[in-house]
Amino acid sequence: MSDSLPSWRDTATRTAIFDFVAAVTDENGPDYVVPEARVAVFDNDGTLWTEKPMPTQLHYLLEQWKAAAAADPSLADTQPYQAAASGDMSWLSAAIDRHYAGDDADLGLLIAAVASASGGVSVDEYAASVAEFYREARHLTLGTPYAQVVYQPMVELIRFLEANGFTTYIVSGGERDFMRPMTEANYGIPAERVVGTGMGLTYDAETNTVRYAPKLAFFDDGPEKPVRIWMRTGRRPILAAGNSNGDVPMLRFAQGNPRSLALLVHHDDDTGRGDAPYDKGAEQALAADGITVISVRDDWAQVFPTA
Amino acid sequence: MSDSLPSWRDTATRTAIFDFVAAVTDENGPDYVVPEARVAVFDNDGTLWTEKPMPTQLHYLLEQWKAAAAADPSLADTQPYQAAASGDMSWLSAAIDRHYAGDDADLGLLIAAVASASGGVSVDEYAASVAEFYREARHLTLGTPYAQVVYQPMVELIRFLEANGFTTYIVSGGERDFMRPMTEANYGIPAERVVGTGMGLTYDAETNTVRYAPKLAFFDDGPEKPVRIWMRTGRRPILAAGNSNGDVPMLRFAQGNPRSLALLVHHDDDTGRGDAPYDKGAEQALAADGITVISVRDDWAQVFPTA
Repeated sequence: MSDSLPSWRDTATRTAIFDFVAAVTDENGPDYVVPEARVAVFDNDGTLWTEKPMPTQLHYLLEQWKAAAAADPSLADTQPYQAAASGDMSWLSAAIDRHYAGDDADLGLLIAAVASASGGVSVDEYAASVAEFYREARHLTLGTPYAQVVYQPMVELIRFLEANGFTTYIVSGGERDFMRPMTEANYGIPAERVVGTGMGLTYDAETNTVRYAPKLAFFDDGPEKPVRIWMRTGRRPILAAGNSNGDVPMLRFAQGNPRSLALLVHHDDDTGRGDAPYDKGAEQALAADGITVISVRDDWAQVFPTA
Repeated sequence: MSDSLPSWRDTATRTAIFDFVAAVTDENGPDYVVPEARVAVFDNDGTLWTEKPMPTQLHYLLEQWKAAAAADPSLADTQPYQAAASGDMSWLSAAIDRHYAGDDADLGLLIAAVASASGGVSVDEYAASVAEFYREARHLTLGTPYAQVVYQPMVELIRFLEANGFTTYIVSGGERDFMRPMTEANYGIPAERVVGTGMGLTYDAETNTVRYAPKLAFFDDGPEKPVRIWMRTGRRPILAAGNSNGDVPMLRFAQGNPRSLALLVHHDDDTGRGDAPYDKGAEQALAADGITVISVRDDWAQVFPTA
């Protein structure tokens, strides 16, 4: 196993991963799990790729809102269009800080703007828009394509698990159809194994296509994550990986198995690679029982893929 | 290919299936489809197994309602508990007839009773109840286990498609978690590839489990089918199979591809095997454009598995 995770250092965390996989794949051992029940679920932003200085989806949305404000100047005085058009992120940063503090007074404005960006659009049109973004956009501080800000050690973990009979899923608060192209391209996780936040959808019989409704259908975070995992898989995962408080119910859900591995990526890295250390939004997760913490600083020898 | 569908007769329908699979798997042909896009979706009741004299799920629900009425006599005067307790199906038959005629006045009572049967129950408890039903129950007219009333030709079709790189899904109006055990046992389609009607679900942090809420979340029929297919797979299927009007949007959705196969099981069988001929609820589907009709009478040499 020891050459399976080359970007990981030889630490207790890596040993815990190897021990877990050895235990659940040992047909003669007490912790054996049949392959079809080897379900592993991964949060995305901050767990499999960087979420700083902002989640990639927010970068995409800001570009959409900026274009919307240019096309309709009446939007320019309202948030979040004003922020997008001016590039002044102070309102947005404050709104996100208030969200982490439990105050979602601004969330309605954001959700309405998210919904407005895709309402009426067909799933194929949206896919084309998202594909163009992934081709053109550059990470806001590193200046690299977003494919270069995935966490190489986690991609290796996904491959290692799949090589041991696991089925991997993305279970993220990110919008499902925004994630699908990048999870396939960067993690090798196909569209049908992506669980995320969903916009409303309707079947438009006239054009024989599926279109987004201008509303959020569900937000795949916190207690919604175990629900969405069940809906999609009909199983309780044996491995879950996250990085924030919103992942705690999913981590606990996995821990309900006789043997499980609950992983938490801890952003204690201070190497200036666009991932300045942060614990904000992860306080409860770091304090949760039975979690195996992945230290970005100590457990990973390399964070991003070699260009 | 010709020995791949042994329970099918050598008819134009079987040829159409063989021609379609040959076309989409021919790497040098104009209709080639990459394996990851070879998605095939199947309705369940009446398409993959018998739905007469009533859908199996209704049989299960009647047993639950009968037990509920026995435990709480105040229910005995209300429908559908009265029907379940008395065994008098006339109200239920009339309600279903009215539903097919577009009158859903009784649907609310039925949905409320469905929701009541599972509200508060954990997904594991429900799975155990359903598993017991599948072990014990017998088909109401044939007297055989329900595993014996699946359509053998359709199971062969599923295997044939999978052998040609297709991924198969169940997309049914039946309740998802009721179907999961039987689709795995009888069709080899695992839980994660079952799309169906969903009860509401909540994560119960106290017991670290997922429980049904006493309400229907969505009814996976008609225009909801393409929506649910997109949510689950992120793809437009190239093959769809159904048997009723509620399958028309799903069949049309598949037909939006450059090459597709839309199959409709037509119950013109009069062999007295529990499948007396019926067109009710399939009128629009039989009249739809571009459908390949599967005649139970003419295309299938054998309907049920050899015991």
